[in-house]
Amino acid sequence: MALNYGTGPVGMGLAMAEGDAPGGAASALASAPSRAPPPAAAPAADQATGFRTHTCGELRISDVGVDVVLAGWVQQARDMNHFAFVDLRDRYGITQCVCLNEKDGDAAAVARYELAKKLGREFVIQVKGKVVERSNKNKARATGEIEILAHELVVLNESLTPPFLIQDETDGGELKRMEYRYLDIRRAPIANALLLRNRIARLVREHLSGRGFVEIETPVLIKSTPEGARDFVVPSRMNGGQFYALPQSPQTFKQLLMVAGMDRYFQIVKCFRDEELRADRQPEFTQIDCEMSFVKQDDVLATFEGMARALFLAELGVAFPPFERMTWQRAMDEYGIDKPDLRFDMRLHEITHLVKGREFKLFDEAEYVCALALPGCAGWATKRVKDLEKMVTGEAVGASGLVWAKVKSLKPGAVDIDSSAKKFYDADALKGWADACGCAEGDLICCFWGPRLRTQTAAGKFRHLLGTELGLRSSGFSALWVVDFPLLEYDEEQNRYIAMHHPFTSCKPEDLPLMESDPGKVRANAYDMVINGVEVGGGSIRIHDKAMQSKVFALLGFTPEEAKAQFGFLLGAFEYGAPPHGGLAFGLDRLCTLIGGGSSIRDYIAFPKNNQGRDVMINAPSEISQAQLDELSISVKPTKPAGAAAS
Amino acid sequence: MALNYGTGPVGMGLAMAEGDAPGGAASALASAPSRAPPPAAAPAADQATGFRTHTCGELRISDVGVDVVLAGWVQQARDMNHFAFVDLRDRYGITQCVCLNEKDGDAAAVARYELAKKLGREFVIQVKGKVVERSNKNKARATGEIEILAHELVVLNESLTPPFLIQDETDGGELKRMEYRYLDIRRAPIANALLLRNRIARLVREHLSGRGFVEIETPVLIKSTPEGARDFVVPSRMNGGQFYALPQSPQTFKQLLMVAGMDRYFQIVKCFRDEELRADRQPEFTQIDCEMSFVKQDDVLATFEGMARALFLAELGVAFPPFERMTWQRAMDEYGIDKPDLRFDMRLHEITHLVKGREFKLFDEAEYVCALALPGCAGWATKRVKDLEKMVTGEAVGASGLVWAKVKSLKPGAVDIDSSAKKFYDADALKGWADACGCAEGDLICCFWGPRLRTQTAAGKFRHLLGTELGLRSSGFSALWVVDFPLLEYDEEQNRYIAMHHPFTSCKPEDLPLMESDPGKVRANAYDMVINGVEVGGGSIRIHDKAMQSKVFALLGFTPEEAKAQFGFLLGAFEYGAPPHGGLAFGLDRLCTLIGGGSSIRDYIAFPKNNQGRDVMINAPSEISQAQLDELSISVKPTKPAGAAAS
Repeated sequence: MALNYGTGPVGMGLAMAEGDAPGGAASALASAPSRAPPPAAAPAADQATGFRTHTCGELRISDVGVDVVLAGWVQQARDMNHFAFVDLRDRYGITQCVCLNEKDGDAAAVARYELAKKLGREFVIQVKGKVVERSNKNKARATGEIEILAHELVVLNESLTPPFLIQDETDGGELKRMEYRYLDIRRAPIANALLLRNRIARLVREHLSGRGFVEIETPVLIKSTPEGARDFVVPSRMNGGQFYALPQSPQTFKQLLMVAGMDRYFQIVKCFRDEELRADRQPEFTQIDCEMSFVKQDDVLATFEGMARALFLAELGVAFPPFERMTWQRAMDEYGIDKPDLRFDMRLHEITHLVKGREFKLFDEAEYVCALALPGCAGWATKRVKDLEKMVTGEAVGASGLVWAKVKSLKPGAVDIDSSAKKFYDADALKGWADACGCAEGDLICCFWGPRLRTQTAAGKFRHLLGTELGLRSSGFSALWVVDFPLLEYDEEQNRYIAMHHPFTSCKPEDLPLMESDPGKVRANAYDMVINGVEVGGGSIRIHDKAMQSKVFALLGFTPEEAKAQFGFLLGAFEYGAPPHGGLAFGLDRLCTLIGGGSSIRDYIAFPKNNQGRDVMINAPSEISQAQLDELSISVKPTKPAGAAAS
Repeated sequence: MALNYGTGPVGMGLAMAEGDAPGGAASALASAPSRAPPPAAAPAADQATGFRTHTCGELRISDVGVDVVLAGWVQQARDMNHFAFVDLRDRYGITQCVCLNEKDGDAAAVARYELAKKLGREFVIQVKGKVVERSNKNKARATGEIEILAHELVVLNESLTPPFLIQDETDGGELKRMEYRYLDIRRAPIANALLLRNRIARLVREHLSGRGFVEIETPVLIKSTPEGARDFVVPSRMNGGQFYALPQSPQTFKQLLMVAGMDRYFQIVKCFRDEELRADRQPEFTQIDCEMSFVKQDDVLATFEGMARALFLAELGVAFPPFERMTWQRAMDEYGIDKPDLRFDMRLHEITHLVKGREFKLFDEAEYVCALALPGCAGWATKRVKDLEKMVTGEAVGASGLVWAKVKSLKPGAVDIDSSAKKFYDADALKGWADACGCAEGDLICCFWGPRLRTQTAAGKFRHLLGTELGLRSSGFSALWVVDFPLLEYDEEQNRYIAMHHPFTSCKPEDLPLMESDPGKVRANAYDMVINGVEVGGGSIRIHDKAMQSKVFALLGFTPEEAKAQFGFLLGAFEYGAPPHGGLAFGLDRLCTLIGGGSSIRDYIAFPKNNQGRDVMINAPSEISQAQLDELSISVKPTKPAGAAAS
């Protein structure tokens, strides 16, 4: 029923006489008509209160003749001379109310009409009346076959004129919308986003609870670790000079719960990270955090693939086939990224072996050369190809350059391939590239070269951008698991290996010998769920074995003492019978955005912060009083960093 | 199924040969046999993983002959010479495994027996074998009719000897239990407490979601207010010198959500308060936070009475009658407390009008005199009455003294009442007291005097203590609403009225005239749900009307400017069409403790903090590095308060 709200005429301008003709501005969800309807809302009767008998979304032609009381906000009031229309809105929908201009009526009737026609937008009113059939029905609105013939009208509260229009497409602008978030949420797209988030959370809880998972709350006031450079900290008044930290994730606690025998844990939980924010990051964000004991990797993947499948089916009617499990190596080799978007092909193809020994220095000196083919782009004009060359060396791609080849004809005996490297490669050689890429005639081959990983990454970014530019993505959703991540990655700044996932991630037993000989090649039991190129979740099978843990700590350059200092209580717990265990975490904000089809996670968060980590509605963070600082035994340093904005 | 865990023999000592005879130490829940069983756990098949085919709680006589794989912790291993028993435990129960001492068997069989008999407590093992019927059945254990004849036994992980026994009644002591909380949770009473909490949270969510409530996450990083002396604050690295605060409750945000049209909101949410802790307080605690729009007080009471009824019915089989609605005034007059425990009577009776003018100065000068009758205590010896007199003037009661009367006979013509004030009151007068109290022969009347509220409060404490001492409380649960709280209470220190609930609480319209003449008498639309003398929830109908809000602010001594500074953004929001709304919040920790029958809320929190706000397991709070302090633009003051414990 909530969806009716979104399909109503909220977005209609005042120019239209009745404001509710079909074809009003589309709501956020209405624009995806292929999606399944969300679960029905609660039965109507439950919404009756002392102020209303029905909501503004539920009355139908079958209710004609019923005496009702509605309450809500004035979407608009229009004087039609012989009567006044009032469109009454609540989160369930919009119902049209009519106040007749009974010139010969009693004083109350006259006053009612006079009041109705002057009602301001967003006034809160109560309307008592009878449901009547409309002559001019509005098929686009769930309540569009009826209207309320008002016999009483009470203003419950007035409203100033809101700073932007409460309709799907608003004139608010980001800043105003955030400052008046309580008005922004009245808009259908935002209200629907919050309702969707609520449904997703419910589905997750039902699905996991039905499979023996127990939701357990872990603490928010925890301990900062030496690695916790991005921890938010909280001074303790009762323990002067000491600080709690807010968790970046409940990782340690969920592992402790496995040691505690709790077997199947999950939690929808706020996490915190004090870092420079990007468009899709918030200082506080919500995870679906999960952990299981006595499991192998397949158990975890099957369990949470099932959960994702249930979510997409219930919310969107999307039935996923079994998720492909792609190794990290293949993802990098073929897509140049660890979260490939499989909605389009255009894969990377290594051609290192095809290009060597032709006196083309760039390729001869490169560790790695790959090619990908832009379908149907062989005819691009010189200017457009030049622009492409410029783009690939820019920040968005970061390649060292572009070698291209235009596949004009592949006809036997008449192969015609033009290339920026044709000085070094004849038609036969270029046909080899085309074959490697599985090209069709008319494709434009783009080659990248350099160190393997860096080149793949650049080519992956190029693929992503061109996929967008060429409109290659199919509609719908494409999901996979990326598995077998490297256990370690080499940090060139620190000149040592660091854990790619985290230091408790286990590795493939068959790769154990590589620990000594070639640690960078050791594959972890780590996995990410990727949908449409978005990493929606990731995790690993943890180490539960002491000997293995010591080995990994050594690889990471921790002395036993350092390991104890940093992870002491978890290592201590592991001495008392840690079961084999593993898990993962999903980003709820991101998952909702993906399912809802939104462009910003902020739309799926009731009260988000901006890119400076600031809540502009309540003006937080802000300065606190000297008395508070004194109580907490801290002081603010007199020289503030340049970023300290006036509030 | 989880409950089986609690009814098993976890608490058995090693002295018993087989360790699983009926009558082992009772589990936390087993001691309340009248309670309904909790909802069944997920079907067994869901628990199968790569390490097990079944849990340790699910095999039955019908499974005999099945090949199974179990994994879990060694509760105990016992060498019986011809075989070794291993009791294998997980969160679902305990299953007995048998390793035969096949002296003539192959090397593997011999090794298996040798391994089994030496298994240490809390080792993590995997057992493969066949389900066989036991000859010596254990009726007290759900799996007690079968055992596993092991043909393979794998040690998955070893364990140090735990610092306390993993059984219902442990030898751990509070500190050790907290330090090794991950072992404490393996104990059935704690595991069951966490499972109960999970069930309660699920029931709440199902109940409210089914009634149109939407769970919406409100921010954790918010703004500190001048009144927020007990706010935890969080320095912002990105906004040097500025702080977020952690919410003491989402009060403001839920009211904003009502302005936003979200109509029916709830959230199970962490809240934070940095204050001196008591036995039932934690610096972070969990609220079931709720708000509704377009409601009157009755709507809120009916909705949440329904929720409480559903919880108690589902979890305990307790069917509440409709909750009594008792005014705050009556609660104070009859029980001397705003959260009366109705499981026993022994009410306060005002006798001010009966005691005046008898030249008994204490009573003559008192504003108020009340009496309550201890049933059957008239025969108490002088010593015991003396002890009572001492007790009432102590801290636990705080009365100014005790006047008593022993009702020995009420027979017409032979009234015999002894009293410590018999010098002033004859038998007739004393009979008047007895009549006022509804005394029976044999009761001991206790009188208190002084200022009304203070005296009632002392008598209420006395009632509470004597209810316990005399064992007056009936078993079961008694629930009520306390309504019509005063809007204001007079703060003698600050010499002004302060809001009893909070400054947005509305008052009874009929009391509006009292606002000027006698503000202390104005009754609020505020209510508490009280069960067994515990305030489990409370809330109010809020003010949504600007004029009323200004009036209340004025009463509270706020200038318009101060009100704006403190509540600016909420008042701002109220300008744009605030609907009539109200709500309440329940303390989840307390509610779980009440339903679970526990003595400490700490048992119902996975990782609680101690009375110093310290997590002794992870050792938080703790000092942080200078680099972290520098990044945050704060410094710790060199002189720490005395309370700063060494960590």
